[in-house]
Amino acid sequence: MPKYCFEDFVTGSVDEYGSRLITREEIIAFAAEFDPQPMHLDEDAARASMLGGLSASGWHTCAILMRMICDWFILDSSSMGAPGVDEVKWLKPVRPGDALSVRRTVLETRLSKSHPEMGFVRFAYELLNQKRKIVMTLTTPAMLRRREPTTLAAERSVAAQG
Amino acid sequence: MPKYCFEDFVTGSVDEYGSRLITREEIIAFAAEFDPQPMHLDEDAARASMLGGLSASGWHTCAILMRMICDWFILDSSSMGAPGVDEVKWLKPVRPGDALSVRRTVLETRLSKSHPEMGFVRFAYELLNQKRKIVMTLTTPAMLRRREPTTLAAERSVAAQG
Repeated sequence: MPKYCFEDFVTGSVDEYGSRLITREEIIAFAAEFDPQPMHLDEDAARASMLGGLSASGWHTCAILMRMICDWFILDSSSMGAPGVDEVKWLKPVRPGDALSVRRTVLETRLSKSHPEMGFVRFAYELLNQKRKIVMTLTTPAMLRRREPTTLAAERSVAAQG
Repeated sequence: MPKYCFEDFVTGSVDEYGSRLITREEIIAFAAEFDPQPMHLDEDAARASMLGGLSASGWHTCAILMRMICDWFILDSSSMGAPGVDEVKWLKPVRPGDALSVRRTVLETRLSKSHPEMGFVRFAYELLNQKRKIVMTLTTPAMLRRREPTTLAAERSVAAQG
C-alpha cells in the first residue's frame, strides 16, 4: 500500500518541498535536445533577448517540477496519472544557480462517479526560487486510487436500501 | 529578418509538419531523468497500469512537440517566447515506434497595445500518431515581432489626426 492515497489530500492544505539547485549544464543540455532557441543555449544571445540572460526552457521547468514531485510524493502514492494540465504560467526566468522549491495546494478533491476505486485531486503547484519569487504556476487534475475503495460501494448499497 | 513574422500567421490557417519516430530508448531516458514512474520506465509495470504498455511521459510528449515546432518554424521566426500554456490534454499513450506529426491551427492573432513592435498569436497544436489519432492537444499564446513595426504607429498618428 503506498504512503499517499486519495484520502490523504485535503482541500486547502498547503505543503512545500525542496530545494533543488539548477545548473547551467542541465539548462543547456535540455535546450539542445528539446528547445534549441538561442536564449536557452547561449549566454550572449540570451542577454539580448526578453529574458535578459541564460534561462531554462519553460518545458524544462515543467520537467524539473515533475521530477521534484515524483521524489516528494508521487512515487510513493496511489497516483494513476493525469489527463492533462489546466494552465501553465512561466512568470520569471529560471537561471543557473537558482534553488527551486515547490509549493503544493490542494484545490479540490472529489470521488469518481464511474470508478469508485479512485478520486480526482486538483493540485496547484507553485515553483519558487531562492528569493521566494514564484517562477512558474501550474494546475493539474490527478487521479489517485482510494485507500479503502469498498467504502463507497457500501455507502451506495445503504443509500439504495434507504 | 526571419522567415516567419507576426504577419505570416492568419486566423483559421491549418498546417502540418512531421513525422518524427519515437524510440523506446528516448522514452526511458526522459522518464529516468524527469518522470521515473514505472509506466514510463518498465514494460511489465506499464502493462499493469492504466496505459496498458510502455508509453512516454506526458512532459516528454510536450518536449518532443516543442522540438518539432522549433525545427519546423520557431527557429526561423520572430518568436519572442510565450508566457505559458493554456491547456494540455494527454489523450492517448505515445508508444515506442509511434511516428508523430504536428497539426497547427492559428486560433487568433492580435496586435499588442503596449508594444507596437509585436503581436500575439494563439496556436492550437495537435500531435497525431501514424494512425491519425490525436495523442495530445495544447493551446499556447506566442509573442512574435512584426515585420513592419512602424505601420501601427503611423496608423495611430493618422487616427489621432482624425
